[in-house]
Amino acid sequence: MAPASVTTASGATWQEVAADRQRHRDATLDQLCPPLPKLLTDDIPLNTTSIPGSLLTEEELGITGTAVEDLAAKIASGEWSSTTVVNAFLRRAAMAQKLVNCVTEILPERALKRAAELNAYLATHKKPMGPLHGVPISVKEHVGMKGLDLNAGFVGWVGNVADEDALILRCLWEAGAVFYVRTTQPQTLMHLETSNNLYGTTINPYNSTLTSGGSSGGEGALLGLRGSVLGIGTDIGGSIRSPAANNGVFGFKPTSLRLPVEGLAVTMAGAEHIRPTPGPLSTSVEGLRLFTKAILDRKPWLRDPTLVPLGWRDVDGEPESRGRKLRVAVVWDDGVVRPHPPVVRALADVVEKLRASEAVEVVEWKPWRHDLAWEIIAKLYFCDGGAEEAAAIDASGEPWRPLSKWIIRDNPHVRAHTIPSLWKAIQERDAYKAKYAELWNANATTADDNNTSEVDVILCPAGPGVAPKLETARYWGYTSQWNLLDYPAVVFPVGGDAISVEKDGDGQQAEGAQSHAYPEDYTPLSEADAYNWALWKEHGAAGYRDAPVSLQLVGRRYEDEKLLRALENLLDAAGLPRSC
Amino acid sequence: MAPASVTTASGATWQEVAADRQRHRDATLDQLCPPLPKLLTDDIPLNTTSIPGSLLTEEELGITGTAVEDLAAKIASGEWSSTTVVNAFLRRAAMAQKLVNCVTEILPERALKRAAELNAYLATHKKPMGPLHGVPISVKEHVGMKGLDLNAGFVGWVGNVADEDALILRCLWEAGAVFYVRTTQPQTLMHLETSNNLYGTTINPYNSTLTSGGSSGGEGALLGLRGSVLGIGTDIGGSIRSPAANNGVFGFKPTSLRLPVEGLAVTMAGAEHIRPTPGPLSTSVEGLRLFTKAILDRKPWLRDPTLVPLGWRDVDGEPESRGRKLRVAVVWDDGVVRPHPPVVRALADVVEKLRASEAVEVVEWKPWRHDLAWEIIAKLYFCDGGAEEAAAIDASGEPWRPLSKWIIRDNPHVRAHTIPSLWKAIQERDAYKAKYAELWNANATTADDNNTSEVDVILCPAGPGVAPKLETARYWGYTSQWNLLDYPAVVFPVGGDAISVEKDGDGQQAEGAQSHAYPEDYTPLSEADAYNWALWKEHGAAGYRDAPVSLQLVGRRYEDEKLLRALENLLDAAGLPRSC
Repeated sequence: MAPASVTTASGATWQEVAADRQRHRDATLDQLCPPLPKLLTDDIPLNTTSIPGSLLTEEELGITGTAVEDLAAKIASGEWSSTTVVNAFLRRAAMAQKLVNCVTEILPERALKRAAELNAYLATHKKPMGPLHGVPISVKEHVGMKGLDLNAGFVGWVGNVADEDALILRCLWEAGAVFYVRTTQPQTLMHLETSNNLYGTTINPYNSTLTSGGSSGGEGALLGLRGSVLGIGTDIGGSIRSPAANNGVFGFKPTSLRLPVEGLAVTMAGAEHIRPTPGPLSTSVEGLRLFTKAILDRKPWLRDPTLVPLGWRDVDGEPESRGRKLRVAVVWDDGVVRPHPPVVRALADVVEKLRASEAVEVVEWKPWRHDLAWEIIAKLYFCDGGAEEAAAIDASGEPWRPLSKWIIRDNPHVRAHTIPSLWKAIQERDAYKAKYAELWNANATTADDNNTSEVDVILCPAGPGVAPKLETARYWGYTSQWNLLDYPAVVFPVGGDAISVEKDGDGQQAEGAQSHAYPEDYTPLSEADAYNWALWKEHGAAGYRDAPVSLQLVGRRYEDEKLLRALENLLDAAGLPRSC
Repeated sequence: MAPASVTTASGATWQEVAADRQRHRDATLDQLCPPLPKLLTDDIPLNTTSIPGSLLTEEELGITGTAVEDLAAKIASGEWSSTTVVNAFLRRAAMAQKLVNCVTEILPERALKRAAELNAYLATHKKPMGPLHGVPISVKEHVGMKGLDLNAGFVGWVGNVADEDALILRCLWEAGAVFYVRTTQPQTLMHLETSNNLYGTTINPYNSTLTSGGSSGGEGALLGLRGSVLGIGTDIGGSIRSPAANNGVFGFKPTSLRLPVEGLAVTMAGAEHIRPTPGPLSTSVEGLRLFTKAILDRKPWLRDPTLVPLGWRDVDGEPESRGRKLRVAVVWDDGVVRPHPPVVRALADVVEKLRASEAVEVVEWKPWRHDLAWEIIAKLYFCDGGAEEAAAIDASGEPWRPLSKWIIRDNPHVRAHTIPSLWKAIQERDAYKAKYAELWNANATTADDNNTSEVDVILCPAGPGVAPKLETARYWGYTSQWNLLDYPAVVFPVGGDAISVEKDGDGQQAEGAQSHAYPEDYTPLSEADAYNWALWKEHGAAGYRDAPVSLQLVGRRYEDEKLLRALENLLDAAGLPRSC
């Protein structure tokens, strides 16, 4: 595949570059054989999630409806060939593109060549190449793929070509994976939605008036439509978790410096003050684990020495092996923004089930100054005052997207740091982290000698509501909090419990939803809360119809393995499924 | 103890502050009972190491001559009381002060109170409080100690008082340690020698014309005189290893982010581009291990969340358990500065013994651009162009020490960074680290399938010579290399193999030393090498008489435990002792 030749560097306008990228994307879709059927009539329906199912074969439906772990088993046993599996996902991903605009290109040639190699390997060796043998993995565009364009959502970057696969891809490749599709991301990678001037806006498959989330919003939407069951996102403020939550799938942000970022296209390379991390989105908890373990088993720290050499640690039986219940601390709201009623309702429902469970003990977590946490992290996101972001946007003359402007130009905490002001901000960051560590320690040590009151995980909202209306995803606090602290965090769907007018009411006056609705005399906690409240008053439950409801579970720093185990225990205790 | 009242903040001159600090130090020495005998006649002899031995009791000699691990065992068994042990070390430390000027204060009151507590604990519980029960530990001054002055070697900082013990002290305290003496450090903490305007210069006990090294040079000299057998240093460019090497003891710089720096007084707080780490100096390898394990066993990462949560990992039998020899890669010189003949000779002697050993395989390591490594790290040491260092010095009007000027003002790589130039320098750092990781990986994978050629450790000089003449310790490359890479590194004495004119010759012409001497037609490798060569030409072996000769062993990042085990195996194979 030749690199993009229509670039602003070669004199094209940004509109011409965008049109060319879209033509390229569509051309990759046209390689499918047989061609895709026509999916849509003139109007896009509100909820498109059932459309692929009505057009795929039974076999394709079976394959794309299978959780990663079962998929891997069936390919390894030879029940399904890699080629059959890859073809099914290529077709469903292409359909997802037509429905929600979540793909930058599909890779039929590469993926089918790889599948053929894997088939041959299995035939020859009578064993799979690795734990992900034949598993198709979708990849956010800014994760470099050898020989392919690498634009990170900036029009001016079109024409950059990756010299080799990003290290995370090399690790997954060695474990047997197949890469078959690349997905959209927003301009700057710093929105909790996905829109850029190359490909437009990625919308939510459950409700086309809502965002798929961001920045890994192409992944989120693709998984929501089951055009993928395992994808790679990246997260520095919620960019894996927001799209996973918005699309009703699982999304895991590990502690940083475990999974490699080498080979990702980003602005501000060298900035290590707040670290991004890659991580998986999946339709199952086991998918998150398989992905993470497969990479760690490749010892990526030997190739990327910025990483911490912590292999996958088995935590089977934790904390039950210590003869006590899983202790879950609940954050109802963060003291800055009260979540919309459906989130409050879902949290209450889950907590009620956990309280009734033998396996879990529920306590309250008192959030400590999450407003300060936002100030600190926002001060460290763009330490050059946003100069590199601005340069990357302005290089092509493309317009600033509203949420780019919101997070950089309208953000009162952004400044062009000097070295002394940077060091001061880093000290504030570390002081905040130390304070939060004290909170965990206090919980651990004020109890009896057996430490039975040690908090294992924090259960909290995944955001200030369900998937937001387009261009309204302004509040990052529920996810960025855990980036500042560098705690692992995972979001999970609350079953089939999507928003419905019946359950969540339509604005404040709705019947049967009083206990989770805003009080009559509600006073906003902050400016951000007033904005969030106004959104609910304006749109109500009807405005968010069918949106999945998700929650978030958070562990202590580097306790990634324990967190995933705790999530399974929590899901079991609450009667929720481990896959969706 | 009241905080210092004579400070520049309260109007005193820097000379008055210094005089007051020295009076305070001497007053602590005067608390000893019985008082110290007169140690010196009018002239300080070249080598003072035998003096304490001639004035201490047999019991005091026995105690201070015992390795940490045996000391701990004898205290735990009740053979020696904590009080007896502490008293012996207090007296010997005070003597060391008189001989080489390595102490800022001794702490008889605190230490004896603590010893009494420990005695009572042992009597009551019939078991020690922890693995360091009663072990006296000497502490570099800038490691904060509750209620005591904390000046970090700056006159203008006198009057700062620590609010609480540094976290590393709290961990050691919980393990049963006794803190009894605080030791000197240079102005800025950024010299490989130890001199400041508060206390003057700390000299080398083996040869008073040489430096004790730095920045933990008070520790080094104190251990050299056995006024301590276990001390805390800190290292960002060689500050543990230079003084350990110069004084013929063991010194260990762990990988950073394992041992806590919380509570240390430093300039440039918030700078995380090159990280300092604390670590032990000891008269035995086992002392290094006991210290490190005792701290890690306290899980310091729960209190300082910047740390990586890696507990002590047992590596008994590594690499023998894998059925192969320890593979040691030798760096003869770093391609920038050729070490002085005694170092070349010692390295050759050790390598010859290792080659003859069944347990070790020796290969060559080709250093990759250590000159570039110095440029990169020097560019990241003082990212504000040295502004905070200058402010700390200039606050009192004290003069710049020559080596402060050398490392900051005369250093061509120091600059006041902008954010973009900082990010660029960080990228250069990470690229260099990645390149060095490739070297290890290449060594590991170009061999046969069993990976038997994987290099375990690198053996190299600890510096460009033995302890340098005062104010000549300008070349950091042999130690700073491993700070840039963040590899664990340990220095060890080469037995009783100190410099002698007979072995090392006196300049180039000496008999019997040709093979290690500079060639007749030597051409310096660099400007730094020309300087180093000139020192040898000027002073020769006679100028460095009696200086201990030490070498350095380096492990891969985070392989701290393996490194210490490898050192023991190497010492055994070379017929060198594990304690000194």
